[in-house]
Amino acid sequence: MANTVLMDHDLMHTVEELGQQLRIDAVRASSAAGSGHPTSSLSAADLMAVLLARHLRYNFADPQAAENDHLIFSKGHASPLLYAMFKAAGAISGAELLTYRSRGSRLEGHPTPRLPWVEFATGSLGQGLPIGVGLALTGRCLDRLPYRTWVLCGDSELAEGSVWEAFEHAGWAGLDNLTAIIDVNRLGQRGPTRHGWDTAAYARRMQAFGWHTIEIDGHDPAEIDRAFAEAVSTVGQPTAVLARTRKGRGVSAVEDAEGVHGKPVADPDQAIRDLGGHRNIHVEVQPPARRQRPTSFRSKTPALPTYQTGEAVATRTAFGEALAAVGDARPDVVVLDGEVSDSTRTEFFAHAHPERFFECYIAEQQMIAAAVGMQARGWVPFAATFAAFLSRAQDFIRMAAISRASLRLVGSHAGVSIGQDGPSQMALEDLALFRAVHGSTVLYPCDANQAAALTALMAGLDGISFLRTTRGDTPVIYEAGETFPVGGSQVLRASLEDQVTIVAAGITVHEALAAADQLADDDIRVRVIDAYSVKPIDAGTLRQAARDTGRIVTVEDHWPQGGLGDAVLEVFADGAEPLPRAVKLAVRNMPGSARPAEQLREAGIDARAIAAAAKDLLARLSGASPSLLFHDHEDFSVLCAKSLHDHERKQSRGAAHPSRVADSSIFVPVSALLTGQFFLASPAAAANSVSEIPGTVARTES
Amino acid sequence: MANTVLMDHDLMHTVEELGQQLRIDAVRASSAAGSGHPTSSLSAADLMAVLLARHLRYNFADPQAAENDHLIFSKGHASPLLYAMFKAAGAISGAELLTYRSRGSRLEGHPTPRLPWVEFATGSLGQGLPIGVGLALTGRCLDRLPYRTWVLCGDSELAEGSVWEAFEHAGWAGLDNLTAIIDVNRLGQRGPTRHGWDTAAYARRMQAFGWHTIEIDGHDPAEIDRAFAEAVSTVGQPTAVLARTRKGRGVSAVEDAEGVHGKPVADPDQAIRDLGGHRNIHVEVQPPARRQRPTSFRSKTPALPTYQTGEAVATRTAFGEALAAVGDARPDVVVLDGEVSDSTRTEFFAHAHPERFFECYIAEQQMIAAAVGMQARGWVPFAATFAAFLSRAQDFIRMAAISRASLRLVGSHAGVSIGQDGPSQMALEDLALFRAVHGSTVLYPCDANQAAALTALMAGLDGISFLRTTRGDTPVIYEAGETFPVGGSQVLRASLEDQVTIVAAGITVHEALAAADQLADDDIRVRVIDAYSVKPIDAGTLRQAARDTGRIVTVEDHWPQGGLGDAVLEVFADGAEPLPRAVKLAVRNMPGSARPAEQLREAGIDARAIAAAAKDLLARLSGASPSLLFHDHEDFSVLCAKSLHDHERKQSRGAAHPSRVADSSIFVPVSALLTGQFFLASPAAAANSVSEIPGTVARTES
Repeated sequence: MANTVLMDHDLMHTVEELGQQLRIDAVRASSAAGSGHPTSSLSAADLMAVLLARHLRYNFADPQAAENDHLIFSKGHASPLLYAMFKAAGAISGAELLTYRSRGSRLEGHPTPRLPWVEFATGSLGQGLPIGVGLALTGRCLDRLPYRTWVLCGDSELAEGSVWEAFEHAGWAGLDNLTAIIDVNRLGQRGPTRHGWDTAAYARRMQAFGWHTIEIDGHDPAEIDRAFAEAVSTVGQPTAVLARTRKGRGVSAVEDAEGVHGKPVADPDQAIRDLGGHRNIHVEVQPPARRQRPTSFRSKTPALPTYQTGEAVATRTAFGEALAAVGDARPDVVVLDGEVSDSTRTEFFAHAHPERFFECYIAEQQMIAAAVGMQARGWVPFAATFAAFLSRAQDFIRMAAISRASLRLVGSHAGVSIGQDGPSQMALEDLALFRAVHGSTVLYPCDANQAAALTALMAGLDGISFLRTTRGDTPVIYEAGETFPVGGSQVLRASLEDQVTIVAAGITVHEALAAADQLADDDIRVRVIDAYSVKPIDAGTLRQAARDTGRIVTVEDHWPQGGLGDAVLEVFADGAEPLPRAVKLAVRNMPGSARPAEQLREAGIDARAIAAAAKDLLARLSGASPSLLFHDHEDFSVLCAKSLHDHERKQSRGAAHPSRVADSSIFVPVSALLTGQFFLASPAAAANSVSEIPGTVARTES
Repeated sequence: MANTVLMDHDLMHTVEELGQQLRIDAVRASSAAGSGHPTSSLSAADLMAVLLARHLRYNFADPQAAENDHLIFSKGHASPLLYAMFKAAGAISGAELLTYRSRGSRLEGHPTPRLPWVEFATGSLGQGLPIGVGLALTGRCLDRLPYRTWVLCGDSELAEGSVWEAFEHAGWAGLDNLTAIIDVNRLGQRGPTRHGWDTAAYARRMQAFGWHTIEIDGHDPAEIDRAFAEAVSTVGQPTAVLARTRKGRGVSAVEDAEGVHGKPVADPDQAIRDLGGHRNIHVEVQPPARRQRPTSFRSKTPALPTYQTGEAVATRTAFGEALAAVGDARPDVVVLDGEVSDSTRTEFFAHAHPERFFECYIAEQQMIAAAVGMQARGWVPFAATFAAFLSRAQDFIRMAAISRASLRLVGSHAGVSIGQDGPSQMALEDLALFRAVHGSTVLYPCDANQAAALTALMAGLDGISFLRTTRGDTPVIYEAGETFPVGGSQVLRASLEDQVTIVAAGITVHEALAAADQLADDDIRVRVIDAYSVKPIDAGTLRQAARDTGRIVTVEDHWPQGGLGDAVLEVFADGAEPLPRAVKLAVRNMPGSARPAEQLREAGIDARAIAAAAKDLLARLSGASPSLLFHDHEDFSVLCAKSLHDHERKQSRGAAHPSRVADSSIFVPVSALLTGQFFLASPAAAANSVSEIPGTVARTES
C-alpha cells in the first residue's frame, strides 16, 4: 500500500530531524571506529529517513517474515547510515552503534548477514541492484507476495555493467515491486563522476531500459516522500528515484568536498554541532500489511533417472535429467540459465517446470545475483552456464560466500575434452576458482549415475556448491542408486600389490581406468581413485593410498594450478608425514581446436600419458633409494659410505650442507617401516630371503 | 576517408555475390569440420561483404601496420565467416579454409591470434566491444592515428553488462573512430532474444548512452553501404549500425529457424545450391590511406624511488611512486584505474602523465578490455584496482591469456591485513585466480624497494602479470637497488642448524621474521624464505630448504586454496625426493572487521602462529620418530617392537594394512641421512655421545 498521505508540517519536521540524527550517528560511528565512509552516508540520510519513517514495510522484530520489504545498501560503504537506521528503529542500541568496525562487532565495515536485518553482504559495488532483481522476481513469480525491494545505489556504481544487466532484466520483466534509489552525490572515491548532478543523463538511460524515473532534490523530504509514493504506485515498470544530493551533507567541512571519501570527519564534535546536536528519535517502522501463512513445501524423494552400466551418457545430460526429477520432487527448487540451457541441459527442467525456470540471457552476473536473491527467501536455486562463463560472475560468487548464501552452480563444457570449439569455451581454471571460494563444495562426476546422485545431493547442500559437467558422452560405470557422499571418493581399483595410486575425477577417471588396464598388462598394479568430491577431498582414502603405494599420480582436465592435483597435495600438508611422491598431470599448453580424444592426448592427460607417468614414477630414483633394507650391519656400512659419497657429489653442485654420520651408527626409518617403502639393496641372496615381505621391491645395487 | 561513392549497379551485384560466397564458404568450412556455427555466420555475411569490399582499410600483407583498421568479431562463434573473409581477401587458401577446427589448424573454432589478422581471441561474448573501446582510445589518445575499429556484435550478447560499460565509455569519450555493427538476427542460442527484430529498442538504449545509431535491413547491401559511410563520417559520437538480419540467411532449411544454432547444416550441398553455387571472388581490400613513420619510443632506465631500511612504507605506495618513475622513463607505458587511484596509488602516475592515464570508473571489465586493446598496439598498460575487484574481470583475464596479451595487473588491499573495511574489500583468492591464468606471473612484494623493483620489472614482462600490494605500511628490509628476478626468492635467514623452513610472501614475510626471532629465543633456528615470485616459484631454493630442514611452514594472507602454499607444495609434485613435511598457514575463517594486527592474529598467520606451527612441526611424530639414531643394534630391536606395536594399535582403528617386518632386519633411511632429520632415541648415555652430530635432537624414550 503506498503511503500517499502527504506529510504534514510536523511529520516533515520529524523526518528532517531523523535525517539529521542519522547523520550524527553515522559521524559518531565512524569517528569511534577511526575509519569508515561518513560522507557517503551523509548524502543519503534524508532518503533513508523518509524511507524508514514512511515507506519501508518491515518488522524488525521478525526479520524472516515473508511479507517484509527488502532493503539493500548496494552502496555498502554507507554502512554507518544503515546502522544508524537500525538504531533509530530500536534494533540496536547506541552503545552497539559505537562498536562499529571493532573486532567482534556485528557492525562490520560493510554490511554482512551477521546482522539479522541484513540479507546480503555488500561492499563490492554494482551488486545490490542485480540481487534486488532476484528478490523482485522471487516476490512476483515464486513467493507471490507484494513485498517491495528497495535498493540504495550510489551514482559511481552505475558505471558497472552488472547494473545494466539488472536494468534490462527488471525493465523487461516490468518488475514494479523493485525501487532503485540512486544517491547522486556527484563524487566518486577519487573525484567527480562522469555525469555529476545531471540526473537527466541517468534517467534517459534508465528509461531506455524500460524504467520509470523520478528526479528529485535528495534533501527535500517532501519531494522524496512523493517520489517514493509514486514508485510504490507505479504499475508495470520498476522505478528509479534519482536524487541529487551532496556528499557529506550537513557537515560544512566536508560537504561536497573532494578528497574526503572514506575518511572519518576530522572534527566530529564540530560536525555534530553543524548537524544541530543530538536527537533521540525512535522510529516505529511500519510492519507489512498482512500476515499470510508462510508457504510450506512438501518435498518427496526424487525419482532420479537411472542409467545402465556400459551405456555412454554425458554427465551434463544426466545432470539435466536429474535436475528435472529433483524439480518434480521439490517445489522449492528453481533453475536459472544464461541462454545456454540446450547445452547445460537445464532445458529439461525448463520444459517440466517453466514457472520455476528463469532465463537470464547472456548476463551471468545478473544470473548469479538473482540466485542469491532467491535463496535469501528460502528457495533453492541452481544456476547453470558453461563453466568457463561462470568466471564472468566471479566477484558475485566471492561476495555470495560472504553473504553465506547457498547457491548450486553448475558449469558445463569443462576442460579440453569439449573438443573443437577451442579454448574460449573450455573451463580450465574452474576447479581452482571454486576451491578458492570460502566454504565451497566442488563436485566433478565421471558418469551419469554419479552425476544424477550428486545433483540431488546438491539440492540439500548449504553454502556454495559447484558441479562440473562434461560435454561428451562417457561410460556409465556406477550402478544406479549408489551413493556418493560429499567428502568421499570411490576406489575403483585396489589390491595389496598396488605400487602407484592414480587420482582422477570426471573425464580422467575413464582414462585412469584404461591406464590401469594397460599397466596391468605390464604386471604393474595401480590403485585408481575417483575423487569426485574435489572439495572437501577424501583425505583418509588418499592417506591410506599414500601409505600403501607411496606414489600418487593426479590427472585432471584442468590447468595444473589450484585444481585436483593441488587438492590432493594439500591433504599431506599437515606436517604429519613427508609429502608423498606425487606427480600432477594436467593441461599445460594452450589448447587449439581438435577432436576430444585428440585434445586429451595433446594435453597429456589420456590413458597413455597416465600409464607413462606411473611407470616413470616407479622407475624414478633421486640419487638413492628412499630406504634400504639390509640383512646385516656390514652391508649397510658399505652402502652408506657409497651413498654418502653420491650425496656429497651432488651437494657440491649446489649449496653445501653435508650430513655427517658416525661410521658405526645406523639410521632407522620407522617412517619407512610405516609406509612400506622398501627397496632391497644388498647381495642377491639376502634379496631373495626378504622378498616375500609385502611392499618390498627387490633391487640389487651393482 | 569515408567511402561516400554510392555503389553502382555492378558494384552492388559484386558485393551481393561476395556475400553469397562468404556464406558458401562458411557452410563448407563448418561442414568439413563437422561442427561450428554456420547460421550465426550466414546472418552477417552481407554486412561483412560490404565492409570488406568497401570500408575496411586494412593491409592483409602487413597486419602490423599502424594505420590498419581493426576488425573484431565479438560474436567469435561466427568464425567461419571471418575465415571466409580471409579467403576472399586472399590471405588464406581454399584448402586451408577446409582445415577449420581440425587439430593443428590455425583456423580454430573461435578466432585466436594464431592468425596474423586476428588480434584478440573472442568466443566469450560481450568482450569485443569493450576491447574495441580500448583500441579506439588508443587510436585517438595514444597512437593519434585515424584507424577505425569495427566490432561485429551479435544481438544476444548485448545482454552482457560489459557491453554497456563499453557503450558508456565510448559514448562519453565521443569515440567516433569506433563502429559497432550489430547483427540483429533475433535468435540466441536457445531461442529468441528479448527484443527480436525491434532494433528501435536497442537504438534507444544506445542513444541514451550517447551513440549515434542507424537501423537498417542487414541484407540490403546499399543500405549497409550507406550506413557504414555514415558511421565513418559521423563526428563526435561512436556509431552503432543495427542490422536486421535472418539467422541462417540464404539456406532455406535453416533460415530464421530455431534449434539449429551451433550445428553444421544438415545438407551442405543443398545449401550451396540455395546460395547459388560456388563463386570465386577475390576482394582487393583497400589498404589504409597513408603511411606514417611508426611511433618509436626512446626509453630510459627508470629512476626508481628508493626507501631506507627501517622506514615503514606501504608496498602500494612504493608501487605508485615506481610506476610514475617508470612512466617518466618509458613513454609507452600507460595506466588504467577503476575509480580508486587514490587507493591503488596510480594517482602519482596520473598526476605526472595525465595524457597516458585512463580513468575507467567503476567498470573493471571495460578497464581490462581497454588494456587488452592498448597492448595490441604495442603500448604497455598497467591496470589497477583493489585485488578483490579484479575478479570482476576474471573472464576477461581468462580470454586475455588466450589472446596472448601482455597485461600488467595490480591489485591492492590484499588480504585480511587491510583491517576494518572487512571481507568485501579483501582479496583472499587472488593468488589462486592469477596462478590459474595460463602463462601468468604472480608477484607479491613485502617491502617498498622490492615493490618498486618488481613494478619496473613488470613493465618488461610478456603475458599476464599480477602484482599484489598491501594497504598498510610495512618495514623496508631490502636495500634500494637490489634485484628480484622473476622465479627467484630471497633467503632472509639461513644457517646450518635450520630445522624448519618458513616460506612467506608479502605481509607474512615480516611475521615470519618476527617468528624466527621468537624461535631463536628458544634455540630453534629456522630458515625464512621470501617467495615474492609466487609464480613461477623458486623451486631450487625450496628443494634445497627441504633437503636441509625437512620441514616447511608456508604462511599467506590468503585462503588456503590455490595460493602460496599450493605453489610450494607443487614444487614437490614431480616425484623426486627429498619430500619434506609441510604445513600450510592461511586464512581459514571468514574475517570480520578488526584492526590489521588483530586480523593477522585472528587468522592465525601472525608471528605467534608461525612460531607455534614451527614448533608443532618439530614436535610432531606420526606414531614414531621420522628416524631414529641408535647406538647399537639391540636398542633398536626393543624400540622397533614397541613402535610396531603402537603402529598396529593405530592401524586397527582404521583400514588395516599392516607392515610386517622380519625381526632381525634393520631399515636404513638414506633419506633421513640426506635430510638430517635425526631424533635420538636411546639411553641417555648414548644420547650424549652423538649429540654433537649436526641436525640431531636428543630425545629419550621413556
